Amino acid sequence: MKGLGTSPGVGIGKIFLYKEVKLEIKKNNVDDFNLELERFNKSIEKAKTEIDELYHITKKDVGEKEAEIFLAHKMMLEDPEFIKGVEEKIKGEKINAEWAVEETANAFISLFENIEDEYLKARAADLKDVSSRILRILLNKDSVDLLSIYEKSIIVAEDLTPSDTASMNKEMVVGLVTELGGRTSHTSIIARTLDIPAIAGIENIIDRVNHGDMIIIDGDSGEIILNPTEEELDFYREKLQREERLKEKLKDMVGKETKSKDGHKVELVGNIGTPSDIDKVLEKDGEGVGLFRSEFLYMDNDSLPTEDKQFEAYKEVAMKLQDKPLVIRTLDVGGDKEIPYLNLPKEMNPFLGYRAIRVGLDRPEILKTQLRAIYRASHYGNIKIMFPMISSIDELREAKSIAKEVRESLKEDNIPFSDKVEIGIMVEIPAVAVHAKAFAKEVDFFSIGTNDLIQYTLAVDRGNQNISNLYNQYHPAILRLIKMTIDGGHEEGIWVGMCGEVAGDKKLVPILLGMGLDEFSMSAGSILGARYIIRNTSKEEIKSHIDRVLNLSTATDVENYIDENILK
Amino acid sequence: MKGLGTSPGVGIGKIFLYKEVKLEIKKNNVDDFNLELERFNKSIEKAKTEIDELYHITKKDVGEKEAEIFLAHKMMLEDPEFIKGVEEKIKGEKINAEWAVEETANAFISLFENIEDEYLKARAADLKDVSSRILRILLNKDSVDLLSIYEKSIIVAEDLTPSDTASMNKEMVVGLVTELGGRTSHTSIIARTLDIPAIAGIENIIDRVNHGDMIIIDGDSGEIILNPTEEELDFYREKLQREERLKEKLKDMVGKETKSKDGHKVELVGNIGTPSDIDKVLEKDGEGVGLFRSEFLYMDNDSLPTEDKQFEAYKEVAMKLQDKPLVIRTLDVGGDKEIPYLNLPKEMNPFLGYRAIRVGLDRPEILKTQLRAIYRASHYGNIKIMFPMISSIDELREAKSIAKEVRESLKEDNIPFSDKVEIGIMVEIPAVAVHAKAFAKEVDFFSIGTNDLIQYTLAVDRGNQNISNLYNQYHPAILRLIKMTIDGGHEEGIWVGMCGEVAGDKKLVPILLGMGLDEFSMSAGSILGARYIIRNTSKEEIKSHIDRVLNLSTATDVENYIDENILK
Repeated sequence: MKGLGTSPGVGIGKIFLYKEVKLEIKKNNVDDFNLELERFNKSIEKAKTEIDELYHITKKDVGEKEAEIFLAHKMMLEDPEFIKGVEEKIKGEKINAEWAVEETANAFISLFENIEDEYLKARAADLKDVSSRILRILLNKDSVDLLSIYEKSIIVAEDLTPSDTASMNKEMVVGLVTELGGRTSHTSIIARTLDIPAIAGIENIIDRVNHGDMIIIDGDSGEIILNPTEEELDFYREKLQREERLKEKLKDMVGKETKSKDGHKVELVGNIGTPSDIDKVLEKDGEGVGLFRSEFLYMDNDSLPTEDKQFEAYKEVAMKLQDKPLVIRTLDVGGDKEIPYLNLPKEMNPFLGYRAIRVGLDRPEILKTQLRAIYRASHYGNIKIMFPMISSIDELREAKSIAKEVRESLKEDNIPFSDKVEIGIMVEIPAVAVHAKAFAKEVDFFSIGTNDLIQYTLAVDRGNQNISNLYNQYHPAILRLIKMTIDGGHEEGIWVGMCGEVAGDKKLVPILLGMGLDEFSMSAGSILGARYIIRNTSKEEIKSHIDRVLNLSTATDVENYIDENILK
Repeated sequence: MKGLGTSPGVGIGKIFLYKEVKLEIKKNNVDDFNLELERFNKSIEKAKTEIDELYHITKKDVGEKEAEIFLAHKMMLEDPEFIKGVEEKIKGEKINAEWAVEETANAFISLFENIEDEYLKARAADLKDVSSRILRILLNKDSVDLLSIYEKSIIVAEDLTPSDTASMNKEMVVGLVTELGGRTSHTSIIARTLDIPAIAGIENIIDRVNHGDMIIIDGDSGEIILNPTEEELDFYREKLQREERLKEKLKDMVGKETKSKDGHKVELVGNIGTPSDIDKVLEKDGEGVGLFRSEFLYMDNDSLPTEDKQFEAYKEVAMKLQDKPLVIRTLDVGGDKEIPYLNLPKEMNPFLGYRAIRVGLDRPEILKTQLRAIYRASHYGNIKIMFPMISSIDELREAKSIAKEVRESLKEDNIPFSDKVEIGIMVEIPAVAVHAKAFAKEVDFFSIGTNDLIQYTLAVDRGNQNISNLYNQYHPAILRLIKMTIDGGHEEGIWVGMCGEVAGDKKLVPILLGMGLDEFSMSAGSILGARYIIRNTSKEEIKSHIDRVLNLSTATDVENYIDENILK
């Protein structure tokens, strides 16, 4: 069996078959509806206590951002529309609490699910999770206890909810296999964060395996071996040990320089989404931040965040980093990221639409406020500004002139800011890579955003399951555009970084080094691995392979070439 | 005032202010509903007669495809749901026919308009057109008579319906100005087909001008001059005369070779959407067809067209062309083109989704049937096969192997086909242009599809009004990708054509000639103009400009350079 490897590494253990408990809800007429109201209220209180606990476990084990989902769950338990809906049903129809909860929740869920909106679809999934918690409490059923897993196990499930992943015993779970999901599903993200191998997209696996059977999964290849032979076990145990030895070696990487075998130094930095993420980057010895996504400031609010609020957030991160670089990307809204109060138009192809800097230039008051906050924070650290989704030099000049205006107004107001703030752009639209030298003349740095660059260069929406096989970072055209960007930047004497997922891709890190990439920015978890690879790679040696790689025909040819000639 | 020029050329005339007649519909209770039913039926018959007439006028004046809209209108008048809806309202509520028509139509219209579906939105517009026709007939009102325009006039309107453009006096209308619409709106398409200058997107112009005032419009720049001075009139009259002299010269181009001033021969061919379009291409002395869009065969049907039906259509065009080349593009469905019976999935970003060859490779029975029909037709002419939306060499190889299978099955069945059918691809995804040489090794020709190539390279949905200013064919990155494609093709010895709108762009034709483009494919109306430009351009001279053009910063720089140094 083979699925989509969504978190790398080998897992060996017993199958823990996790089927959702089907709760049978019956409708009962009651005489004393007050009793039902009380039962309902108690179940809500109990659910809140459980959710609080999951929030704290997740915050500790995984991270603050991942724990936030439980704050959303808790808000649902306080949502007057939902609570009143259930209570009125109990009173009005004189029925039991279970039935009222089920009916009310389903009405909301089907409403959410029927609207073509990813945000509401996600809310529907959350409400399912919350309402089945309430129902389980009302029915006095135990949850299948993922916390009590006591031997090395691989969970096999249709999919896992945030409640499931939060409550599982992370010491004993050595792998996850799900029927649903892709690289960006909740389960996959958590698996990568926790460093547990995971495979998604295997149809009907629940009905094809037995609880307790031995299983091997390989999160790199997506392969699954059921009831392995002794030889297979030996082979994968050895692979697992190699991985574990490597992990030990990675720990040694803390404090080491990021320098190739032949002495070329590059910068190894982290991508972050909230100020609290900075701790993980520093723990993994990141040398700064190559991408600070500023969206969280706008998403966690009901209206535009004030200049002061933004200033505090940027300042906090800048000060924690001391003189290490902090690249702040201006608001990248639109595409798949919605902010309700901005009232962005509904579009046929949002990824090709009104998003990121296009919004910023169209509504300059938003961009100005953000730039003022960033410049003010620049007084406290080594801040750089990065504009997303630039497609033309006209837009770049317009954005730069707004930045200039902001600097002048700060000067007038006698507010201190650094006069060394570099201005750069994301290179994520093919036009920029193709014409890199001209853009390089007008900025201080480039940062290649591979996720979008791949999407546009191959004309593939990376979230679209129907064509996800076409999205491929090893496509020679992608490598060519990366090379063009680096060369164009260097011809004009600016530094070139990368902040897309490719920057941490084991197979591509040597290639990027050989092409001359100056800065590698990635999720904290990948930093030490990348340093290890870079320290064991000779830049000059790779350089001699680049032309051959760029002239290969297909993505598979590229992967094979790297496996055979570079990773050896 | 300035708008978006949607059809080129200068128009000088009096304003014909065209406001929609607001029909006031009152609700009356009637005793004898049979009388109302009879009135309704008579109005339907009269409407059919009118629509038939518009169909024939449009077919004669404009073209068969453009006339088809009236077949759709007529079908609405025969739609049992609509007819029965009105009749039941008349009988059930004992009300007048007008009110019943208005209510029934509005119910359908608001239903269509509220669904996020371009197809249904267009149907809503059609139904508005049809129902106001019925109401006008019922109320015995004359339509504003665009046919009776007796002096040189420029129509100023909110927008024009197909009924309006069909019925206007084409001899006297020398320009169109509308508040709504873009390059692809109905009014713009008709204006270009009829060769009438047009400008769209001028807000509230209806309220800002007077009927009968003089006006000059310039469809190239989008400029409008109200109540011009004598000097302005002189200036534009002269421009108009130059245009007219040029048109005369273009007539001389029939029968001439398509050869540059310094003797380089290129191929000048047409884009067609239906077999009947071929007449216009031949009339304009096209040297073949560079793009035969095969979608019409699938769109005009309730189920997949049979192999025989397709064979007949391809054969018809091939025979008309004799030994001139005919490039047939395999089905390009998805994106903005829907075919209901294929049940394509609803997607977040259809332009980056499951479309064209991606559908063909996923459902090879559809592609096989089409390829069999094309190969069978190849026995009767000079046919070439072109695959759309290829993004990787893997897909190309898969498509070619299906073509090979088809040839083998035809051999087995002893069905004749040409063994000289070339296979090529559309170059419309940036990855292919960037890696052109590798793709060129595996095909017989390239045809650059600029519409999609621009869209992906700049990450701009060309139908999205919010960002349409970013869609620009003069962006230096677009010219660079075109150059890479031509060079990559020539290095491997294959010919390179172009079938997007850029191929007929007056400013870019010389540049494309200088870059070495071998084949120019465009709408029939642009063919003679392109031949004129090519015959007056020296390829070698342009060649010396190419590097400079490719190194300019912005699209405006490119346009200015061409204006000043090449068109002179």
